[in-house]
Amino acid sequence: MTTIVTILTPGYADWETALLNAAARSYYNVETLFASPDGGEVVSAAGLRVTPNMAVGDIDVSAVDAVLVNGGSIWSTPGAPDVSDVLLRARAAGKTVGGICDGTLALARAGLLDHIPHTSNGPETLPDTGYAGVSHYVDQPQAVLSGPIVTAPGTAPVTFMGAVFESLGMRNGDLDFYIGLHGAEHRQS
Amino acid sequence: MTTIVTILTPGYADWETALLNAAARSYYNVETLFASPDGGEVVSAAGLRVTPNMAVGDIDVSAVDAVLVNGGSIWSTPGAPDVSDVLLRARAAGKTVGGICDGTLALARAGLLDHIPHTSNGPETLPDTGYAGVSHYVDQPQAVLSGPIVTAPGTAPVTFMGAVFESLGMRNGDLDFYIGLHGAEHRQS
Repeated sequence: MTTIVTILTPGYADWETALLNAAARSYYNVETLFASPDGGEVVSAAGLRVTPNMAVGDIDVSAVDAVLVNGGSIWSTPGAPDVSDVLLRARAAGKTVGGICDGTLALARAGLLDHIPHTSNGPETLPDTGYAGVSHYVDQPQAVLSGPIVTAPGTAPVTFMGAVFESLGMRNGDLDFYIGLHGAEHRQS
Repeated sequence: MTTIVTILTPGYADWETALLNAAARSYYNVETLFASPDGGEVVSAAGLRVTPNMAVGDIDVSAVDAVLVNGGSIWSTPGAPDVSDVLLRARAAGKTVGGICDGTLALARAGLLDHIPHTSNGPETLPDTGYAGVSHYVDQPQAVLSGPIVTAPGTAPVTFMGAVFESLGMRNGDLDFYIGLHGAEHRQS
């Protein structure tokens, strides 16, 4: 069974992996797990009280297919949790590693974006991490898939879903159709 | 303080009010509350374990500005909760009442869509409720705002947010810009 674990922090941005995880579990029979820094309850940006399945330190990268970092205001503060270890172990094990919005800061800090095309909320988001990937930054509103690494701005939850599923070998015509349905509300009628 | 309460059911569709509630609480200083049928924990379509603030029966419509019904598979089953009472009391008190995806079934069952323009997931979604509003159905991919009543297909979380904020008198240029940002990932680069 394909398994995805998503890291949620206090104040996490609710909409960024909501569609991805709901579609994964409800339509693709994927097991979805959620981890918080200490395993305790987190309150989302929306005020939703969420009980995660585990602490970040308890993620078994051999038992999951993807580790995703949901965005949230904490990632740009001194209080940002250090999740580099689990991201590097997941990458070394050949698993998908994804970050959306300020969740991309965690990937940059782990060194995962130094040598590959990637994106974030904007060109100004990642340089303060001191990472070496500035020349590989792609300034586009859609998610970027580079091998097993997926990055996206916080306004791209739909293409982030598409890229994560593609990295897991699950992209097909049904998914493309579903992604198109989510674009329809933005087209002028 | 503006207050929104969102009704979440077991298996609720995570992405439908995620952006709305996160933006409301984080950017607009709106109080966001969540209610489940019995006040107990619900597990979302994504598998997220959520602890709500209250039971539906404990919603004080005089203390909130909007009552929203999030979609989820339960609304089209015989096990759908009956939330007509709170929706009708909210409407009678002049508050915003919104439904997205199969959450619109709850509004139809309450009789709130009998005489006004409204939408849903498709023309086939609401007639089985026996409601009297078939001739007022608007088949479009965006949310529909009719006075204080907001409806949307499940693929329209962004325009649903816009319409709910508009009904609360909070629509402005910043909001329109933010909505545009969420459309950018769907445009061809």
